[in-house]
Parts: sequence; C-alpha cells; structure tokens
Amino acid sequence: MKNSKPTILVVNDDGITAPGIKALMDAMKDLGRVVVVAPDSPQSGMGHAITIGKPLRLDSVAIYEGVEMYKCSGTPVDCVKLAVNKIFKGKKPDLCVSGINHGLNNSINVLYSGTMSAAVEGAIESIPSIGFSLDDYTLQADFSHCLKYIKTIAEQVLQNGLPPATLLNVNFPAGGNLKGIKICRQANAKWAEEFDERMDPHNRPYYWLTGVFQNNDQGEDTDVWALENNHVSIVPVQFDMTAHHAISVLNGWKF
Amino acid sequence: MKNSKPTILVVNDDGITAPGIKALMDAMKDLGRVVVVAPDSPQSGMGHAITIGKPLRLDSVAIYEGVEMYKCSGTPVDCVKLAVNKIFKGKKPDLCVSGINHGLNNSINVLYSGTMSAAVEGAIESIPSIGFSLDDYTLQADFSHCLKYIKTIAEQVLQNGLPPATLLNVNFPAGGNLKGIKICRQANAKWAEEFDERMDPHNRPYYWLTGVFQNNDQGEDTDVWALENNHVSIVPVQFDMTAHHAISVLNGWKF
Repeated sequence: MKNSKPTILVVNDDGITAPGIKALMDAMKDLGRVVVVAPDSPQSGMGHAITIGKPLRLDSVAIYEGVEMYKCSGTPVDCVKLAVNKIFKGKKPDLCVSGINHGLNNSINVLYSGTMSAAVEGAIESIPSIGFSLDDYTLQADFSHCLKYIKTIAEQVLQNGLPPATLLNVNFPAGGNLKGIKICRQANAKWAEEFDERMDPHNRPYYWLTGVFQNNDQGEDTDVWALENNHVSIVPVQFDMTAHHAISVLNGWKF
Repeated sequence: MKNSKPTILVVNDDGITAPGIKALMDAMKDLGRVVVVAPDSPQSGMGHAITIGKPLRLDSVAIYEGVEMYKCSGTPVDCVKLAVNKIFKGKKPDLCVSGINHGLNNSINVLYSGTMSAAVEGAIESIPSIGFSLDDYTLQADFSHCLKYIKTIAEQVLQNGLPPATLLNVNFPAGGNLKGIKICRQANAKWAEEFDERMDPHNRPYYWLTGVFQNNDQGEDTDVWALENNHVSIVPVQFDMTAHHAISVLNGWKF
C-alpha cells in the first residue's frame, strides 16, 4: 500500500441514493479518501452501455456529510469515464469499487450488470477495480455481514495490486454465517427468458422481460456453487474476450 | 450444412432502417430463410444492456418485400431475446448474424458495441453467431466489398459450427483490394476519453463524450494490425470472462 492515503472511487448501478452504495462508501472511508460518482437513477441491466447520442450531466451533490459525491445522468460506465476525465482529471484513483449491488452478479450476469461493467471500465482505465453484489434484490437488503470481507478484499487489492487487465467480481450470499472466501470461475449458466405478454388499453401487445436463472454447470469451482454453499465468491474477470483456444480451429477453415 | 434451408436471424444496433442491415439481409437471402429483428432506433454503444424497468414493443414491419421483419423498442440484446422467445418460440435459428455495423467493432469495442453484444447474446442462446462491422461510420458506407466474405464466413459457420460458447467478431477495412481473412486476437487497445464541456442556455455545464482510439499493442496477431494492413479480421470471442490465469494468484492471497 502506498504511504499516502489512497483515493477510492465508489460507483454503482442502482443509483446514488441506493443503500448499497452507502454501505460500500462507509466501508471505504476507513481505507482512504472516498469519491462517489453514481447514476442519478437506477441503471440495472445497462451492461457496458455508454451514452453517445446525447450529452451528460455531472453535478456535485451533498447527500451524506463529509463525502465528495457526484450524480451523473448516464450509465455506470459513463460515471467511471466522467470521474476519470472530469473529476480526477487524469490523476487516477488507487481503487475503483462498484456496488454493493442489490442482487447477485455471479456467472453470466457479469455481462448484463451495470455494477460489474463499471468495474470492468475501471480496469480498462488501469485502475484496480472490484465489483460487489449481494444476493438480496430488495432496497431493505442487510449488508452488515459483507462489510468485513469487503474491507479485507479492498485492502488486499490496494496492497498487492491485481494481475494486468483483470478485476474482481465479488458476490455475497444473503444472511450471516459465511464460510469464508472462495476463488472461483464464472459458472456456465444463463437466463432462460420468458416475456410476459400483455395488452395495452388500445389492444396492442407489449412485453415484460422475466426469466429464470439456469445453471448447467456442475463444477464445484464455480461462483454459483460457492454461493449456494454459503461462501463469498470471487471471480477474477478479464476484458480480453478473445477465445484464444478457438484461433487454431478457425485457422483450419477454408476461406 | 443441414439439408433443409437454414433459418437466419439478422439483427443490428444501428436500427432497422440502416443500410448495413439491408446489405447483410440481402447477403443472407442466398443462404437460407431470413428473419430480421432490429431496434426501431439507433442503439450504438448500448453494449450488453437489457430492458428491465419498462416493457418492450415488438411489431412486424414490411420495409423490404418478401422478408419477415420486426422492429423492437429495446436494445440489440433485447431483440435477440425477443426473437428467440416470441418469434422462434424456442425453435432456435441456425445462425444469428449482427450488423453490418456502420463503424469498426475491433478490440475493446466488443464490450461497448450493441452489434457485438447481440451476437454474444446469440451465442449465449447456443446459436452460432457472427457480428460484422465496417470501418466506415457514415450512412453512405459502401458494403459491396464485404459481401463475398460475409457469405463465405456464414457458410463456413453453418457447415462447421463453432467451438462451444464462442462466436465471431468480423471487421472489414473500408474500400476494396482486401488481402483476405486473418484470424486474430483482440488487440489490447482502449478509448482515451475526452468530454467536450459546454454550457446550456441556463449556464449549467453538460458533457459530450468524445475519444481517441489508443492502441498499445504492437502484436501482429491482433485485429487492429490486420485491419491496418487491409485484412478482414476475425476474432473468436467467448462470453466466459473468467481470468483463469489469475485464480492461482488470488489463491495465494491472505483473506
């Protein structure tokens, strides 16, 4: 860890007033100088979306005493980009933490999640980055059992750094009596969608996305397994999406 | 290739009226039965966003004669989900092609791109999927030099399938005289953002995202290199984002 107090960027996708970001912010206060930049409205499921067709707002707000906070009209990824460019002005923070998300972001959710995409963007900016999520989708979620783990993980990342071009995806079971931390791979699971079809007052159909999480992966080294067995799951994530093993296969094709 | 005519889902992120999707649709007509499902408005930069806070519309449209087409009010990923669930009703298409995007989606753009995210979603649904993009951002882009490559690549995928849980990211240089296809890895490049700060008529600041693409990767096996040297680049992409090489590093940490 550097001798000077580290600067910690706190972001999320549930929006700046979500209890989860308050819990994360409070946990980070013990470790360094905290700067919060979060969406002004819920941005769940925004994935790695950026705003290019319209301008963005970024405004200082005073929600919690003594904390530097900004609300942003864009996506979680926009928040990170604006923070790096307009708030830190190129002097990057020592750590970027995202969450605590109200709801799990294990397995394939790493792609859909605004929380995780903000952390991915932090990593693309070469900032050591971690996303935190809890298996409780309610606004009343209790984050208290997560806090000591969050501090320990953040301290370890500040001390050790992370392997180049990687970040951490940390998920917590709801409730206490956790069995500790397990380093995992992303489970091979997906959402089996259903769309709830309804008719509007003009008799035209519209569709609500619903779905069931389907785990097809029996491995005991996955985040799904760890969470089901009451562990904190940590998946190291990379933003190089190349399927390196498939390159030789394709080189055998006749184009 | 199956003996029966394959069914091909065509999607994009530039919207259902973009010339790029027309070019792709026309190329696919020679290979099978085409079904087009595309956003009703431009959705560039939407990444893997899905719509969960509001309902979606999906309506049949007759823009080009003899083609089954639907416009969707959601994101590119929503289009794929709705197509699988409401149009194909579980009988999945044999191929999902996305594009042709007006603009490159090489390197790190795989994360920001709605075009590529739609193809990723196809792959998550176990549909052989390909994203196509051209290095020309204008609506007047000329796709003619891409078409023979697109047909060949799509035919190869229909014949051979793809390794499990992978898809293809295909990018084309603008203009002719291409040197052929090169199988690549995703270059380690990123966008260096700038935000253009302006004042609104009420003297409040707002920000337009701008940026410069920065390649820090000197490898000659990357998509950036291939495109700069007038090759068609194909990167096999996977949606398992686990940094497998980092698992042993993290297992050495003291939690």
